[in-house]
Amino acid sequence: MEGAHPEILKRLAETNFIKSAGYGMDEYSEAAGSKIRKACNAPDADVFFLVGGTQTNATVIDALLRSYQGVISAETGHVNVHEAGAIEFGGHKVMALSHTDGKLSAEVIAKCLKDYQDDANHDHMVMPGMVYISQPTEYGTLYTLKELEAISKVCREHKIPLYLDGARLAYALACPVNDVELEDIARLCDVFYIGGTKCGALFGEAVVIPKQGYIPHFFTMIKQHGALLAKGRLLGIQFDTLFTDGLYKLIGENAMQAADRIRAKMRECGLELCFNSPTNQIFCIAENALAEKLMQEAEFSFWEKPDDTHTIVRCVTDWATAEEDVDALCELLESLTRK
Amino acid sequence: MEGAHPEILKRLAETNFIKSAGYGMDEYSEAAGSKIRKACNAPDADVFFLVGGTQTNATVIDALLRSYQGVISAETGHVNVHEAGAIEFGGHKVMALSHTDGKLSAEVIAKCLKDYQDDANHDHMVMPGMVYISQPTEYGTLYTLKELEAISKVCREHKIPLYLDGARLAYALACPVNDVELEDIARLCDVFYIGGTKCGALFGEAVVIPKQGYIPHFFTMIKQHGALLAKGRLLGIQFDTLFTDGLYKLIGENAMQAADRIRAKMRECGLELCFNSPTNQIFCIAENALAEKLMQEAEFSFWEKPDDTHTIVRCVTDWATAEEDVDALCELLESLTRK
Amino acid sequence: MEGAHPEILKRLAETNFIKSAGYGMDEYSEAAGSKIRKACNAPDADVFFLVGGTQTNATVIDALLRSYQGVISAETGHVNVHEAGAIEFGGHKVMALSHTDGKLSAEVIAKCLKDYQDDANHDHMVMPGMVYISQPTEYGTLYTLKELEAISKVCREHKIPLYLDGARLAYALACPVNDVELEDIARLCDVFYIGGTKCGALFGEAVVIPKQGYIPHFFTMIKQHGALLAKGRLLGIQFDTLFTDGLYKLIGENAMQAADRIRAKMRECGLELCFNSPTNQIFCIAENALAEKLMQEAEFSFWEKPDDTHTIVRCVTDWATAEEDVDALCELLESLTRK
Amino acid sequence: MEGAHPEILKRLAETNFIKSAGYGMDEYSEAAGSKIRKACNAPDADVFFLVGGTQTNATVIDALLRSYQGVISAETGHVNVHEAGAIEFGGHKVMALSHTDGKLSAEVIAKCLKDYQDDANHDHMVMPGMVYISQPTEYGTLYTLKELEAISKVCREHKIPLYLDGARLAYALACPVNDVELEDIARLCDVFYIGGTKCGALFGEAVVIPKQGYIPHFFTMIKQHGALLAKGRLLGIQFDTLFTDGLYKLIGENAMQAADRIRAKMRECGLELCFNSPTNQIFCIAENALAEKLMQEAEFSFWEKPDDTHTIVRCVTDWATAEEDVDALCELLESLTRK
Repeated sequence: MEGAHPEILKRLAETNFIKSAGYGMDEYSEAAGSKIRKACNAPDADVFFLVGGTQTNATVIDALLRSYQGVISAETGHVNVHEAGAIEFGGHKVMALSHTDGKLSAEVIAKCLKDYQDDANHDHMVMPGMVYISQPTEYGTLYTLKELEAISKVCREHKIPLYLDGARLAYALACPVNDVELEDIARLCDVFYIGGTKCGALFGEAVVIPKQGYIPHFFTMIKQHGALLAKGRLLGIQFDTLFTDGLYKLIGENAMQAADRIRAKMRECGLELCFNSPTNQIFCIAENALAEKLMQEAEFSFWEKPDDTHTIVRCVTDWATAEEDVDALCELLESLTRK
Repeated sequence: MEGAHPEILKRLAETNFIKSAGYGMDEYSEAAGSKIRKACNAPDADVFFLVGGTQTNATVIDALLRSYQGVISAETGHVNVHEAGAIEFGGHKVMALSHTDGKLSAEVIAKCLKDYQDDANHDHMVMPGMVYISQPTEYGTLYTLKELEAISKVCREHKIPLYLDGARLAYALACPVNDVELEDIARLCDVFYIGGTKCGALFGEAVVIPKQGYIPHFFTMIKQHGALLAKGRLLGIQFDTLFTDGLYKLIGENAMQAADRIRAKMRECGLELCFNSPTNQIFCIAENALAEKLMQEAEFSFWEKPDDTHTIVRCVTDWATAEEDVDALCELLESLTRK
Repeated sequence: MEGAHPEILKRLAETNFIKSAGYGMDEYSEAAGSKIRKACNAPDADVFFLVGGTQTNATVIDALLRSYQGVISAETGHVNVHEAGAIEFGGHKVMALSHTDGKLSAEVIAKCLKDYQDDANHDHMVMPGMVYISQPTEYGTLYTLKELEAISKVCREHKIPLYLDGARLAYALACPVNDVELEDIARLCDVFYIGGTKCGALFGEAVVIPKQGYIPHFFTMIKQHGALLAKGRLLGIQFDTLFTDGLYKLIGENAMQAADRIRAKMRECGLELCFNSPTNQIFCIAENALAEKLMQEAEFSFWEKPDDTHTIVRCVTDWATAEEDVDALCELLESLTRK
Repeated sequence: MEGAHPEILKRLAETNFIKSAGYGMDEYSEAAGSKIRKACNAPDADVFFLVGGTQTNATVIDALLRSYQGVISAETGHVNVHEAGAIEFGGHKVMALSHTDGKLSAEVIAKCLKDYQDDANHDHMVMPGMVYISQPTEYGTLYTLKELEAISKVCREHKIPLYLDGARLAYALACPVNDVELEDIARLCDVFYIGGTKCGALFGEAVVIPKQGYIPHFFTMIKQHGALLAKGRLLGIQFDTLFTDGLYKLIGENAMQAADRIRAKMRECGLELCFNSPTNQIFCIAENALAEKLMQEAEFSFWEKPDDTHTIVRCVTDWATAEEDVDALCELLESLTRK
């Protein structure tokens, strides 16, 4: 809801009158790419900068699939629910599988792939051509390293790419229970993106393709999807800043500290958390009246109704969440739940 | 598995050397259209002839939807499972809803439409833009008139078209328990097709649009989808024949009599039928060993495995099913189930 | 304008009650494939049967191109003009180049490919990804073997596929001046189709892919395009018949004899032929009044107006053109041009 | 090549910590919309903010066309040449017509529309469904008010929308010879966009739809195209700034003064200008050796080669072009052309 981390605005202002080449051919984009390659321990990776999450997902998925293939996703996956049909616009079915707290399991994926292969009529069906996961998930949960390794193994056995949507990746990386580092992702996924828009940038997502040349002509596909920013320097400057002096991790840490304080207070007040989210998204089940008040008096938003008398509401912390705002929310939680 | 009803081949041979205009502008197509309009009690209907079911579904759905809309279908709908992504190729999401024996209910559709409208983020989601049903369904079941009326009412309240896939419609119309006639379909649906390929023709499906001009430029869309037959007369002649002297119904009746005899024998032999199909598709749950024999010794095909020890197998009768084949199958059933 | 060669109808009737597998897995399709492989001297070729020309072009082109590529065609190419945007529906630009009498030259193609490579901004442009030609062309003209070899050489140097649309191929093969045989086409093209619809069949086109496995999953793409005929046997039977005892060539020869008689009479009557078509399409420039009469009294159709006082009209012979019809036309030409 | 006008960066910094709603629902976007409506004298207009030009063109064109329609454009139109097939990706043909210095004429458009209507086979062809023009054109030229009125008249007679790409509109509005004001565009076009990216913003284009509700669900289509910026405020703040105190026009004026000085010096030095561009794009024909030097020693770029011994080069001024840079260029021109 805010703009960007002040350091980013400062760099944009400092460099404003320096002339540079367009379309990502500038020195800032080059520097940002180098820092990302280093952070991912992927020295040969191709790195591309796009503007937003939906366009990044649509462009990557269209680039990875052939026309007769679909993308496996959790039913709750962003590509299945909240992208207005952007994947289908590119001609591909989202093959939605069941999930646990927003996560796909290696077993569910393997079963889907095996069922397809075993079906005598599979030539009449959409072929599962890749797997899409998000870290953290839409429910704020995290894949463990073991889970990610198992999914990667299934994908490689079936020779289909694994793609990870890291729109909120900073909050995963900063989460105390997380054991999946950037270099694990680069080792286990074929393509992934490091989110900027929701992690301190004005906008921007960094697509990382660990194996150089894995997607030929990806630049032209970005252009064809209308996802190529003319002044690519803006993306380069932002990611260069985010990957300098550990800023990307710092941004995550602020959000995590705020989220953990809020969760602790909720438990103290007898509120029930749900989905086991350990990251910056906080989900809470409350009786309707209390849920209503949380939405009115604080920045909670409606998530879903598990039954007629209860509501699940969500609040999200970020790089800009101020200590005094957390204090105020904690007080509100106390006053609303006091008998 | 056979060719076409002999009457159709006869007419094709008789008319072979008569010259006529291409692309459906011929006198046979005109005559067939008239007969279909009459049979449907839809004097103003537009009637178009296409070659096959998948192309008909894809062309109609693309014609009815705007780019940001999806089509509601039962999870088991042909468009969701067995069309190799033809709907997504046209840019549209198949919004798969839960079913009962292959049928959607008005309630499930209404809930989907209401949930969409109530969702505060629905501008970020695919809009449900039409409803697809099939009669008989992929499970051989039939919508009752009451059910179809309820679905039609929901669609009209929400101002979205209702489209009925009648790939096997002859077998619905000839089914003793059926109470949905062609004119009911024409009254309650916005577009539907009368199947030829699976109902005695060599190939061909007749798309009926009861309200004239409801889909402007549908001809060009047929062409764009590669679904326009150069020698449209072939379709005209076939449907003219099918709708002369009640042939279409006769074709269904033969299949129904055969199917009912087989079902009666199955019950007699203690075999368990499933999905409550009253039409020409017969589904039966058998222990694996018996199922295996049915697939080897008769023309049963694998459908699915409800558990580890049982298999659901399917057999289908049609216009060409001969009495002696039914006799043979009944004997086989007896011998296989005799203690 | 007629149906099919009588031999085809006869075979359809004879085989009508023989049961066979669907979707092209039948023995007739297998036999037809074998005969085509032999005729093309391409023992390993994949052969697929589709229903019509537009769907064949769209399916093949979508299968050969990646999303960021376009197809090179003559401005007059069927894919550029008369397919209602079927190629663009699949997401591809038709890159229309200048032609001579409907033919592309190797030089024009090479220039287009070189210009693309030399353009500093080519990453922002559609990449030419294949070449589409037709034999005979839309103007009835023929590529010579030398011309086809030159085009094939350019394509192979640039590693892009060459695709030949043979909608009217029988008339090329039977043309006295033709020096391009089926085996030349199979040697020089990566994909081509042998037309049935316009060459004696009820419908059907045989796609030949000389190098086995060149298009993985082509079957599923045919299904996705709605181009898979359920009763594939109908296509198998027709092509099996066309490639038995030289029927395909015979069909072409009848048309050629008729066309050559008509052209000779036209020259005798002082009528001006145009586009140098040596095949079964006859184009003639006439003063408007005469052109009008030809369209009214014979089966000439309007082609284009080269200037205000003249009209180009076209007539087409085929396998069914009877000698008495040619006699009648010749008399008409004489009477209309007699001073 | 630079970032943005300093006023824009200042406003972004000032508002950075103010929280606001996402996706363009913020107060800045609302304010910017109001100012644009006023500047266009279009009080009911819908105004949407997108990130870049290619995505804006693709989204608008997909929204205006039905699947069987194409977009008329000059051969030189950006949508025809430099958008990597983004229009075809949406399923539409770019119907490229001949131009004069980058401009379409009403006559050429009318002929295309009439030819389509008169063609007996037009149901087999792509229907021209809208007209795309750009102001200034890709050649820097301007439509006069009279020309724009004539084009608008043709479009309205044929009931197809007219869409104007204003990627560089600031430079048209500030051009001394221009007689087409924003309110004329709003009166004569059905949709247009006011360019930000090339006119002083970091990025951003403002789509104006003068007739409210003309494109239902445009928001969802923006999302589906991946063209919806999460932090829509960034676009709102930029356009609010550009349309405050005449900044948009000021930006154009600086560029125009610089361009006019450069053109005057070129004439003085005997250099030949081309395409009659009166705006901020300067095209010059020079002998190859001189052209080479201009590209090496100043920021000229290669445009095209009219013949073997000459080259057309281009240079572009903008809001940030400094007086001293113009001075330096003028000196260079003198020194290079001195005998």
